Amino acid sequence: MEDCSAVFHEGAKPIMLTDPIQELSGSRLSTITSPRDIRKLSLPELASLAEELRQTIITTVAKTGGHLAPSLGVVELTIALHYVFDTPKDKLIWDVGHQSYAHKLLTGRLDRFATLRQYKGLSGFPKFQESEYDAFETGHAGTSISAALGMTLAKDIQKRNNRAIAVIGDGSMTAGMAFEALNHAGHLDRNLIVILNDNEMSISPNVGAVSSFLSRKLSGRTMRRVKAHIEERLNSLSNVGENILNVLKKSEESFKSFFTPGMLFEAFKFNYIGPIPGHQLEDLIEALETVRDSSRGPVLVHVLTTKGKGYKPAEDNPGSFHGIGPFDIATGRPKSLPHPPSYTEVFGQTMVQMAKEEKRLAAISAAMVTGTGLTGFAEAFPERFFDVGIAEQHAVTFAAGLAVEGILPVVAIYSSFFQRSLDQIIHDVCIPNLPVTLAIDRGGVVGDDGPTHHGVFDLSFLRFIPNMVLMAPKDEEELRHMLYTAVLHQGPAAVRYPRGPGEDVSLTTELQALELGRGEVLIEGGDVLLLPVGNRVYPALRAAEGLKKVGIDAAVINPRFIKPLDADLISSWAVRTGRVVTVEDNVRQGGFGSSVLEMLSRRRLYGIKTRILAHPDLFIEHGPQKTLWKDNKLDSPAIIQAVIEMMKD
Amino acid sequence: MEDCSAVFHEGAKPIMLTDPIQELSGSRLSTITSPRDIRKLSLPELASLAEELRQTIITTVAKTGGHLAPSLGVVELTIALHYVFDTPKDKLIWDVGHQSYAHKLLTGRLDRFATLRQYKGLSGFPKFQESEYDAFETGHAGTSISAALGMTLAKDIQKRNNRAIAVIGDGSMTAGMAFEALNHAGHLDRNLIVILNDNEMSISPNVGAVSSFLSRKLSGRTMRRVKAHIEERLNSLSNVGENILNVLKKSEESFKSFFTPGMLFEAFKFNYIGPIPGHQLEDLIEALETVRDSSRGPVLVHVLTTKGKGYKPAEDNPGSFHGIGPFDIATGRPKSLPHPPSYTEVFGQTMVQMAKEEKRLAAISAAMVTGTGLTGFAEAFPERFFDVGIAEQHAVTFAAGLAVEGILPVVAIYSSFFQRSLDQIIHDVCIPNLPVTLAIDRGGVVGDDGPTHHGVFDLSFLRFIPNMVLMAPKDEEELRHMLYTAVLHQGPAAVRYPRGPGEDVSLTTELQALELGRGEVLIEGGDVLLLPVGNRVYPALRAAEGLKKVGIDAAVINPRFIKPLDADLISSWAVRTGRVVTVEDNVRQGGFGSSVLEMLSRRRLYGIKTRILAHPDLFIEHGPQKTLWKDNKLDSPAIIQAVIEMMKD
Repeated sequence: MEDCSAVFHEGAKPIMLTDPIQELSGSRLSTITSPRDIRKLSLPELASLAEELRQTIITTVAKTGGHLAPSLGVVELTIALHYVFDTPKDKLIWDVGHQSYAHKLLTGRLDRFATLRQYKGLSGFPKFQESEYDAFETGHAGTSISAALGMTLAKDIQKRNNRAIAVIGDGSMTAGMAFEALNHAGHLDRNLIVILNDNEMSISPNVGAVSSFLSRKLSGRTMRRVKAHIEERLNSLSNVGENILNVLKKSEESFKSFFTPGMLFEAFKFNYIGPIPGHQLEDLIEALETVRDSSRGPVLVHVLTTKGKGYKPAEDNPGSFHGIGPFDIATGRPKSLPHPPSYTEVFGQTMVQMAKEEKRLAAISAAMVTGTGLTGFAEAFPERFFDVGIAEQHAVTFAAGLAVEGILPVVAIYSSFFQRSLDQIIHDVCIPNLPVTLAIDRGGVVGDDGPTHHGVFDLSFLRFIPNMVLMAPKDEEELRHMLYTAVLHQGPAAVRYPRGPGEDVSLTTELQALELGRGEVLIEGGDVLLLPVGNRVYPALRAAEGLKKVGIDAAVINPRFIKPLDADLISSWAVRTGRVVTVEDNVRQGGFGSSVLEMLSRRRLYGIKTRILAHPDLFIEHGPQKTLWKDNKLDSPAIIQAVIEMMKD
Repeated sequence: MEDCSAVFHEGAKPIMLTDPIQELSGSRLSTITSPRDIRKLSLPELASLAEELRQTIITTVAKTGGHLAPSLGVVELTIALHYVFDTPKDKLIWDVGHQSYAHKLLTGRLDRFATLRQYKGLSGFPKFQESEYDAFETGHAGTSISAALGMTLAKDIQKRNNRAIAVIGDGSMTAGMAFEALNHAGHLDRNLIVILNDNEMSISPNVGAVSSFLSRKLSGRTMRRVKAHIEERLNSLSNVGENILNVLKKSEESFKSFFTPGMLFEAFKFNYIGPIPGHQLEDLIEALETVRDSSRGPVLVHVLTTKGKGYKPAEDNPGSFHGIGPFDIATGRPKSLPHPPSYTEVFGQTMVQMAKEEKRLAAISAAMVTGTGLTGFAEAFPERFFDVGIAEQHAVTFAAGLAVEGILPVVAIYSSFFQRSLDQIIHDVCIPNLPVTLAIDRGGVVGDDGPTHHGVFDLSFLRFIPNMVLMAPKDEEELRHMLYTAVLHQGPAAVRYPRGPGEDVSLTTELQALELGRGEVLIEGGDVLLLPVGNRVYPALRAAEGLKKVGIDAAVINPRFIKPLDADLISSWAVRTGRVVTVEDNVRQGGFGSSVLEMLSRRRLYGIKTRILAHPDLFIEHGPQKTLWKDNKLDSPAIIQAVIEMMKD
């Protein structure tokens, strides 16, 4: 075995990295069947439990992929929460939920943990059906305070005395709905507990002023220890430390420097306790016990954690280890095979290419710079790049503000997160008809993240908006020209493309504007018209080949535009063949197929036989994209089968 | 003429209330063709201009209806902004925009002001096509900081030196996206100006501590005047004053009492100036000039205003005069004729009725307690009523939190504002399949508020969500039973009903659960099937009568459920008649008609002739509901005409 000492951070003991489930039969973790078992342990026993949790998470995620860095960051916090609070009677809500692996391991799911994020296996997020300890289902950021507040009020109305505890990261705290919830919670003044899991130090800790009502209740010994830890941390982060010193020097000028991290939350009428070092079990437990026993009204516990804690590659590069595929533990290197450039990569490259020529082009990300492929753009054009935080509503209206003053903004957000900005797309972009481009990444099923992250509603919720132009490319080459077309268009335009590799087609150098609302005939044929959208075009082409072998002559049209639809082209081929099969990686209801039916009805083309191949009216579980396309009958064999059945009608 | 002195608040001079346009020909206001003319006036001249603006707004809105109280509250602020800043080069963004009447009067629209909110007349909101001074189109709350920040960055990228100024109310500041924007603005640190128009004193002013960098730049004379005004105001609001004193007494316990209103914003790295008395032109102008000349980075100007200022009935009852129909100036009483109970009223009464029996029932409003008919519920069941502020995202997830712990929440929000919570409806309610009821008021066209407020997308964006049950009542009696059905349903359910009076049908006392997914045959007929949704059922019934006279035998089915659709009933009648006409107060794309087409395609019922009557793929302007239904061919004559044409197919 290789020497692993280099990859583990000091503080985390070097551990043997073999199969965690086997290795741990006989371990402490294997004796924990529920959080009740944790509450019997001593502090040193809890610390060794933390190490076992880390080992299990690292070795499992190295095989399954997953959200490694967030889950490693909250190992001690998870233990402390279950130790101090009476779960599942007390409700623990994990914001986003991708940091819940230790929670899953401590709540009876050790034996299934190897199935994490596997098809039919454990979800990467909290799920009601998995455990009574999963108090709320999460996936998107910023929902936990709202949910915990609702639970708190439900308890009060029903005169129960349990508690709700929301654990929320500093990133999620930038989501508008988290502020809406803080504001409402401060107003209602109930016994709600919010744990701020601060792994970015984005709210600078002001050591000297840790002095709120609750913090002062901590014992002197704890306070001294807390201060020592934080000073140490400040010293180790020399830039940050210097910044704080600089700010303090300016204290004559403004109030800003007098702020403790707590004052922001106290403005929302929260009691504040912290900052607490998040990897020190003793401090965490004392702070949480103080809150449990002394607090009244809403309280915020500020905990400082390190993303990826205990696994050096993840600590050094928490961005890459936020969500990661299978990797080699010794080196931290991803195990992925070489693959064609992804749509995301081609999007990012095309943005850089366009920005060189077009000085008005700007790019906006909502806390997903790497995920949306914009790292290169951000480096090359920092003055035209904006990461707005987890703030999809603001992202879109901010873009509208840029557009109204002559900039050409491209807002790149994952499909399922664009659900957050429907109103802004309608109200601030499409009503005033502004030239904002929506780059909709992760359209269609996304794979392992499951139902909260599948982008299968976007064709439905974008195509009903007046003034919207909506495109989906058949491959990464077409993506380039669609993006260019969208940016040139003098109004709102959206380009929707899938997660994962492209079709490995060669890329041209020059960008060309597509004619608006014009589809392309890929194969001519007289028996049936296949109308696949976006990533379903190549499967439809393969299906047409397969159909030819059984004597069925299928035409294939790539509509390119979901809106405006190429009604003349489609209806002429529909009439010629008498049969239309639409295929889309979107739900059936209100999607592309539905728009074709509307068009045919409007043109009074009543006799034509139609089949809509789309996702059913159900939430789709996690699993590999190919499996999900197969399950929901959207791949080549399914298209062939649908056509063969249709020919019998 | 009646003595009007009683209805005018002291401070506003008694004015003659005749036709403002006639009366003012020769007035100062009539000489103002653009804000350039304002900048030449002396302070006393500006004050008399303010009075003329008030007179014009009051007398006009008394005839047209409109947002009276918000517009009266910002008369002086509007003058001061145009006086100090170089509009239209400097960009003035009115959050929500319903307070922009004085702005419209000062920017060349005096001659058209009598057409305010009339069909084909001036919009009640800022519109690009009306004026170059309307820098951003608004309607929904909380967008202005995002837009102004975008404009500021566009300016910086293009190296222009103009400014963007967002004017936002304290209510709008509770919208999550306003916080997202504050957070981003603080991070970017550009010269953005936000005017907080605080008419609720929801952020308690702490007089003693007005001492930020910018406030200290105000002259000593101004500061003394400002303090005197605020102290006077505190004294006049004795409860508030007492509360502040009480808080001050508790200062030993917590940091809270040390907060100035500015500290919250300084936590977001905004410079703060204020609070400034919002009806004192001299103070306003000095404060805005200070900001214009001395500020760097984002700055927040806190202005205290009185809603309805200058018109006593509106000052006394700003809620009723927020948005109001035509009223009698002398008494302040609405001129509306008696009408059948509105859907909103019946909703509110039914909620109270249900809450008496069902102790788990709760109601949630997003700052629209009166508007959604929940005042009675809030009074009768305060512990189960929640006004969350303008926070539609939080409202829905808060409801999900209540639901998961055994409460049966009903979230009552206007259709167009529900666009803000699409993601929460999908992610927090429908994926976990929680029993949350959405009461969707103002579904369909709403009339005078126009495109930002029409609720014509909801059938499209709700019916594509798995697990959602979606109903629309034909009249106010059916609304009652649908609401009951929704609350009893063990999963997500939505009831969508229109603005305005019901059908004047008699109301039963007992509530009955409808069978899920079951429609009702209202008229049998063999020639054509009419499938109207919600408020289109009665027009379709009248159309069927009309068709009978010309020998066409129309069946009418009320589907009741847009989802799940009564596919058996509808398809059997579709087959029997061979013709289907759907009618809905919703856009065509992805709406109810589309769902019928999907169903017919799925059942391979290819020969049936179909017509979808729905709103076209355009944003619909403001105007009376009946006019809009007529324009878009959704009333009885249009249904008759469509059927007659169809019979020729």
